[in-house]
Parts: sequence; C-alpha cells; structure tokens
Amino acid sequence: MDLKSLIRTVDDFPKPGISFKDITTLLKEPAAFREAIDTLAARFEDRGVELVTGPESRGFIFASALAYRLGAGLVPVRKPGKLPWRTRRITYSLEYGEDALEVHEDAFRPGQKVLVVDDLLATGGTIRATIDLVESLGAQVVGVGFLIELTYLGGRQRLAGYDVHSLIQY
Amino acid sequence: MDLKSLIRTVDDFPKPGISFKDITTLLKEPAAFREAIDTLAARFEDRGVELVTGPESRGFIFASALAYRLGAGLVPVRKPGKLPWRTRRITYSLEYGEDALEVHEDAFRPGQKVLVVDDLLATGGTIRATIDLVESLGAQVVGVGFLIELTYLGGRQRLAGYDVHSLIQY
Repeated sequence: MDLKSLIRTVDDFPKPGISFKDITTLLKEPAAFREAIDTLAARFEDRGVELVTGPESRGFIFASALAYRLGAGLVPVRKPGKLPWRTRRITYSLEYGEDALEVHEDAFRPGQKVLVVDDLLATGGTIRATIDLVESLGAQVVGVGFLIELTYLGGRQRLAGYDVHSLIQY
Repeated sequence: MDLKSLIRTVDDFPKPGISFKDITTLLKEPAAFREAIDTLAARFEDRGVELVTGPESRGFIFASALAYRLGAGLVPVRKPGKLPWRTRRITYSLEYGEDALEVHEDAFRPGQKVLVVDDLLATGGTIRATIDLVESLGAQVVGVGFLIELTYLGGRQRLAGYDVHSLIQY
C-alpha cells in the first residue's frame, strides 16, 4: 500500500512557510493504519521489546497500537504537570525556546528493553529527549520508529547509534 | 486479572481534595494492557465499528489500540489549534470555565459507525463533547468505552441512550 499517498500536506501550518504533514488522513483508513503498525512492529519484533513509549500526544497513537501488537507495556511520556506521581523531567531546546517532557520515575526498570516511537522525525529534539529519559532510568532503547521522516532536517544524525526506522520519507 | 489493583490512586492531584486515578501503573504491564484492550474490544466487536475516536491525549491511548484490535480506523479528537486542516469545533463547560475540542471536517463520513473511548468517565463533559462532534458530522456512535468510571460523579447520566461500558468502577 502506498502509505505516503494518504498523508495530506497542509501548507503554512502551524506558521507561514511550514508544510505540515497531516497523518489523520492515513489513520482513518483501517487498512493503512493496520499496515503502518504491522510494518513497524515487524521491523522491531525480534528485539524483545518489553515496553513501548512515545511523547505526548501523537506519539501515544503509535506507542499504544505498537505496544498492543508487540505484547508489550505502554509508557506515556508527557508534557510537564500531567503525571500525578514522582516524575523525572528533561528540558530540551526547540527552534524557538525550549520545552520539557516528564515520565514517572517507576515507568522503566533498569535493563528493560524499550521501543521509542513517534509520528514524525523532524530535527529529532523531542525523540532525543524521550530517549534520554528512558536511559536516565536505566532502561535500554532497542529501537526507534517513526511513521514519517523529514530527511532534509537531519534528525537521524541526533540518533546515531540507535536502530532507527521510518515508513515514509520526505 | 484484577485490573483495578493496578490503578494507583494519587491524592491531592491535580489539586487538593482530588484523588487522581493513575493508569500508568496498569499500562506498563503488558498482560494488563492487553486484557483491558481485549475486553473493551470484545464488548463492541459485533457493532461493525468502522472508526474509533477518543479525545486528546489519554483518549488516544485507548482509541489507537482499540482501532488496531478492531480493524478500524482512528480519529484523534484534539485540543484547539492542533489540527492543520478545516476543523469542526465544540466548546463545553468544565467545573471551572470551559474547554474546546476539534476534529477535521472530513474525519467522519455520514453514517459511519464510531466507537468513542477515553481512559476515564468522570462528569462526562469531555466525552459528551466528543460524541456531539461525531454526530455533528453525521456519523453514528455505536458504543462508548472507558477503562475507569467514577460512578459517584454520575457521568453516565449524560450518556443516556448510548451503549456505555467501563472496565473498572469507583
């Protein structure tokens, strides 16, 4: 199936000059959604994945279905202030300003094998922060998966040493 | 499996007097996460579900895995300003102030059968708004599912006439 043909490009969102990749047109097609999850799952299913994690909130979409498909648990990495228990926080730089992500301190046990996923790899800042959170709790990142990769932004270079896979490239 | 025993109650979050139901302790257990999804799926699998939807962002967790499990498509209902294309918006009242949700205008086709899910049914305002969005685009809500229902808040009364199911009650 040509998954790329189901992505809708919306120009000038969220600001002028940016061509936003809208994945909702793919997600709502049952066969396409299934193929996206199954293909990512097949790529990582021999890694002994125990937990799948992704950053709020589109990351939850891929982390959840992949966790279900792989028979793993799910860990939501959230924006600050959303998690009720003791958290580990990481701050990271954006193009304009900075942002932060949090995870519960008991989300990962040392040595657990974790698959990190998100909808889109752009400059890689968000996923790098997610990986750093996983590793700060002693768990092991065994793979990094995306639906879409904007190759011209070079985000993959920030993920050197990891097994990175994307289904659609621009 | 005793799913309820895996929910962590955190007192005084997000504000004094509220006992927050923390689902992360359940989600990270593979067998519990799988059972939660499978049990909700079994409850609705004879309804011809074509799309599963849930409100941002914890709703995505249940909508995504259920869409995958049911062979349906996924529609994310989002907070304002997140969706790039033409949107339908609904505003609804909260205990303090109001909030809004958006969905793409092409998210649902008239007559499509939609399962609406979220992690928790409290007063029902968010899920009622989600249902209203689905129906405003002509689609049909064939079921409403939750991991947790706070029965003492009476949210189910706002969902009269719908087939509502929750896995864990307080």
